[in-house]
Amino acid sequence: MFIILMYEELLEMAKLVRKSVSAVPPAERGNIVAMGADGTPTSHIDKVAEDAIIGFMNQRGLELNLLSEECGFMDRGFPDTLVADPVDGTFNACSGIPFYSVSLAIGKGSLSGITEGLVMNLVTGDVFHAAKGNGAFLNGSPIKVKAPGKDRLLMAYLGAAALPHAHEVASRFKRVRCLGSVALEICSVACGQADALLIEYSDQRKTPRVVDIAAALLILREAGGQAYDKKNEILDMPLSLEVRKNMCALGSEATLGLMA
Amino acid sequence: MFIILMYEELLEMAKLVRKSVSAVPPAERGNIVAMGADGTPTSHIDKVAEDAIIGFMNQRGLELNLLSEECGFMDRGFPDTLVADPVDGTFNACSGIPFYSVSLAIGKGSLSGITEGLVMNLVTGDVFHAAKGNGAFLNGSPIKVKAPGKDRLLMAYLGAAALPHAHEVASRFKRVRCLGSVALEICSVACGQADALLIEYSDQRKTPRVVDIAAALLILREAGGQAYDKKNEILDMPLSLEVRKNMCALGSEATLGLMA
Repeated sequence: MFIILMYEELLEMAKLVRKSVSAVPPAERGNIVAMGADGTPTSHIDKVAEDAIIGFMNQRGLELNLLSEECGFMDRGFPDTLVADPVDGTFNACSGIPFYSVSLAIGKGSLSGITEGLVMNLVTGDVFHAAKGNGAFLNGSPIKVKAPGKDRLLMAYLGAAALPHAHEVASRFKRVRCLGSVALEICSVACGQADALLIEYSDQRKTPRVVDIAAALLILREAGGQAYDKKNEILDMPLSLEVRKNMCALGSEATLGLMA
Repeated sequence: MFIILMYEELLEMAKLVRKSVSAVPPAERGNIVAMGADGTPTSHIDKVAEDAIIGFMNQRGLELNLLSEECGFMDRGFPDTLVADPVDGTFNACSGIPFYSVSLAIGKGSLSGITEGLVMNLVTGDVFHAAKGNGAFLNGSPIKVKAPGKDRLLMAYLGAAALPHAHEVASRFKRVRCLGSVALEICSVACGQADALLIEYSDQRKTPRVVDIAAALLILREAGGQAYDKKNEILDMPLSLEVRKNMCALGSEATLGLMA
């Protein structure tokens, strides 16, 4: 397979998003400015971040379509698409919890057709990156999932909207973290901080879309992990905002037993 | 009441801890270098941070005793004590999850005798500070707890070591975060990011000590919130490493009903 890597462009784009987002005063971040293509309200901070991405694509003449949380699918006539979540963890960013990211992936068709992904922690500036077949990296150093030990850590989405089963699974893990940015949490599994991520919402409208997870899933797979849907099949979804799925992401298949 | 404020000294001390901690390569942070006075293993990063605090106290001739996680109580012959957790969120700091803090409080007797507190997020550098009767501040701006709304957020400690009741309570909140630094999570309640924090461990040895919460509790109370023990009495504990308690911290008493 022949892939033209766009690491430099994705990195510059992420840096521009970080700069644009950090310039928005906290009190203005959560102002609702529109309704997004995904049917959820667009916060000021989401709009600022997406505008930065679109501006960068136009300025550099990037030969990519765009699928993004707020604008939906922009067909620019190219075979490949940039699958972007301008701010993953908008609630955190608006309320001041210092954990949110930008997620950028390139590919075609479905999650399995993603060839490159970059996730930047917009607070710390840490960069996770992977290209298909080339491994995964954190700030340029290779990362890999961790081997399952006895002290396992689960990243989870809990609370009133989660299925009771999610709380049941969480109670089997020694440590639980709920950080609120799914892209970064999958990257946490990829780099061995966590053993697994679990998202089981009762309300289908809250489950992840491809824009949230496309980049992080490639990073996870290149680091040796895997993600599954509720039928324990390898997670795949078309590159569309219409599809959402509950999921789990694992560093090791041995952890799958704890998720049942 | 007459209080000599030591904001400048506490801030300089926290900055020194941040500098010392960030100089430790991630791979070395978790090395166990001793057994702490609280009976838990001392990580290299805890030792580095505590050494920075002791060095600063000696260099500046601060007229304070020290109660700290690793060294225990150092009686230096003064009426007031610095109650310090050099790194709150050691697991995060060692594994690379970017959410940990230093907690510094001054007072005597018990939690109710704390007169000044400072918590610094060691990743972002954000500073929470309060002096008794003078209000609470984040980076110099006044903070207050949030009024209870319908979309409540709980900070919680979940997983295998938590009582099943903690998972039950969490499932009543719209949003749940488990961030892993109790000092910072109480400050999140103080500044209105979260409605409540809940810690209900089945194992008494995992519950918070005064070093973890002394500074953050003053910040919470000065911001308009309150903390309770399992009997719903206002939380107080002597300034000793021997005592640990399950607890909840609330922005508004109206949230107490959700914690039952």
